[in-house]
Amino acid sequence: MDQVFSHSALERFTRSVLLHIGCPEEDATLATEVLLSADLRGIDSHGIARLSGYVRLWDAKRINATPRVKVVHETPSTAVVDGDGGLGLVVGPKAMEIAMEKARVAGTGWVAVRNSNHFGIAGYHAMMGLKRDMIGMAMTNASPLVAPTFSTERLLGTNPIAVSIPAGEEPAFVADFATTTAANGKLEILQRKGLDAPLGWMQTVTGEPTTSADGVKDGGALLPLGSDREHGSHKGYCLGAWVDIFSAVLSGANYGPWVPPFVSFLAPPSDPVGSGIGHFFGALRVDAFRPASEFKEHMDNWIRRFRSAKTVSGQERVLIPGDPEREMTQERLKNGIPVNEKVVADLANLAQKFGLKFID
Amino acid sequence: MDQVFSHSALERFTRSVLLHIGCPEEDATLATEVLLSADLRGIDSHGIARLSGYVRLWDAKRINATPRVKVVHETPSTAVVDGDGGLGLVVGPKAMEIAMEKARVAGTGWVAVRNSNHFGIAGYHAMMGLKRDMIGMAMTNASPLVAPTFSTERLLGTNPIAVSIPAGEEPAFVADFATTTAANGKLEILQRKGLDAPLGWMQTVTGEPTTSADGVKDGGALLPLGSDREHGSHKGYCLGAWVDIFSAVLSGANYGPWVPPFVSFLAPPSDPVGSGIGHFFGALRVDAFRPASEFKEHMDNWIRRFRSAKTVSGQERVLIPGDPEREMTQERLKNGIPVNEKVVADLANLAQKFGLKFID
Repeated sequence: MDQVFSHSALERFTRSVLLHIGCPEEDATLATEVLLSADLRGIDSHGIARLSGYVRLWDAKRINATPRVKVVHETPSTAVVDGDGGLGLVVGPKAMEIAMEKARVAGTGWVAVRNSNHFGIAGYHAMMGLKRDMIGMAMTNASPLVAPTFSTERLLGTNPIAVSIPAGEEPAFVADFATTTAANGKLEILQRKGLDAPLGWMQTVTGEPTTSADGVKDGGALLPLGSDREHGSHKGYCLGAWVDIFSAVLSGANYGPWVPPFVSFLAPPSDPVGSGIGHFFGALRVDAFRPASEFKEHMDNWIRRFRSAKTVSGQERVLIPGDPEREMTQERLKNGIPVNEKVVADLANLAQKFGLKFID
Repeated sequence: MDQVFSHSALERFTRSVLLHIGCPEEDATLATEVLLSADLRGIDSHGIARLSGYVRLWDAKRINATPRVKVVHETPSTAVVDGDGGLGLVVGPKAMEIAMEKARVAGTGWVAVRNSNHFGIAGYHAMMGLKRDMIGMAMTNASPLVAPTFSTERLLGTNPIAVSIPAGEEPAFVADFATTTAANGKLEILQRKGLDAPLGWMQTVTGEPTTSADGVKDGGALLPLGSDREHGSHKGYCLGAWVDIFSAVLSGANYGPWVPPFVSFLAPPSDPVGSGIGHFFGALRVDAFRPASEFKEHMDNWIRRFRSAKTVSGQERVLIPGDPEREMTQERLKNGIPVNEKVVADLANLAQKFGLKFID
């Protein structure tokens, strides 16, 4: 069973927890906004469900609540940022601000980040550009759960890519997706419901196809977007590899199988090849290419044409990337955010542990 | 049956055809190199097989053999280039040169191109950065053959993405792939052999799954990478849409269903929304992020770790993006390039039409 909370109630509680572990006021506010943007957009696996996990990493001294985020190298359109082991929820937006400032001056800005942690949903960071008529991009590597095509080893994370593109009268185009066939959060939902997964999402520890929702838990791996070689899994592997290299080899973070796990009960690899996990952000000023008004008119035209396309039987409409998440946000701001009972229990424990008032 | 020709023989012939239609010497040499790089890399659909198609477009006055490629807008890290209706094989490398010059000064360079035509393989352009220790990116939109998730209409092209990343002692990482489950070239091979296609590559005109290799010819559509919603086709749709918007909405080219067809027997849409087709190029100086030697050592480590991963039963090794194409290039430079008999007949006609000496 889910319990429904208002966005503002979850906000107050999250912020109080982050303040309790020592985050400065401003960082706690920012991290709360980033974290809960996932719940609002319906990506429940990346929202408040992760709060206790962050605290456990902090308990294990694997997250720095008072990081000094700094630029360690730069050119007019690039920077490398060291996240000082901070929450990715804080490091991410700060790095994206730097990318946008570079874009203001140089047309585009590209920031690779090392020594960071899980940054919530990639889409949040990419969407930061919208207010300034900038295209935003965000990607991150993640703990290895994905087997490249032909491999039985987990060498890549679900390594998401987000691209956010402003429009005029229409809502923005916001793509935000894991470079796997299915995100890990979808498996968790099936596990909770005791259901099987579709063939093509996972393989067993020996590389055989499996439909068990516990396939990854049992030592198997998620499959790159495309599922198998015949359906283009090598392309999904290329995408995940690209995200890994931009996020970590450019920045000096850990890559591939060396990426530290997000869960405190698994130790980081003893032979790191870099610092923490890595992200990569991009900002492109639309008017570095053509007048913003002209661009936005054409984006409106693009969006309207695709949205009005003829549909296959049984489907009402062709979606524009970002449509479902925007509609979910409107719905949840109005009617509240359903939180899974296990997550609620987890949060209640957190409240008790820290002597905080639980969500009312 | 295929007939085998040496690379240099194909080169001489291609160049003589391009000179015959009026390309300046330098452009003919460049376009030949770009075109034949596809044959060398084993991407036969994008190589010399297309030469007669280019000539037919030129016959129809839809390709300008003497384009004045010019920058129409720029910032320190960006430019918009008008290809003046030239061969994409010529416009592409010129635009990528501009991106690399921007990168030399600003760290990165990003060039959107309008008023161009088919540019051969995306990988060629991306790989131009390798000699200068730059990461290269190239993408292009293309005639609509792909139905977005839930749509029965063809609104996107196979819209490829290429990313080329230098390494040290190891060969470079070169990803180059259509954002569909399968590229159109693979269908052509099945059609020639009279074989069916795997389920998940195409849908019929009403949006039903089909295995007929003629599915697209019969009015159906290719499917985005992921094949169906359950296997992530919405992600492939996001990728194809992203390429379309960067290539054409940023540059002022035609996008979506307005992209003009590559074949002369189909007329361009009568209501264009821009000029020609669009491309997008990126160049990132590796040392705009960290010292190139350090980056390349880590790339070597990345590549070696992935290449030595344990394999699934029946597979000898895990491939690094670019491995098959590099090996094919070595093989074909040594043993020649097999050309399909229909293509050979096509080229012989071309030789006769122009009074040129056919390939010896």
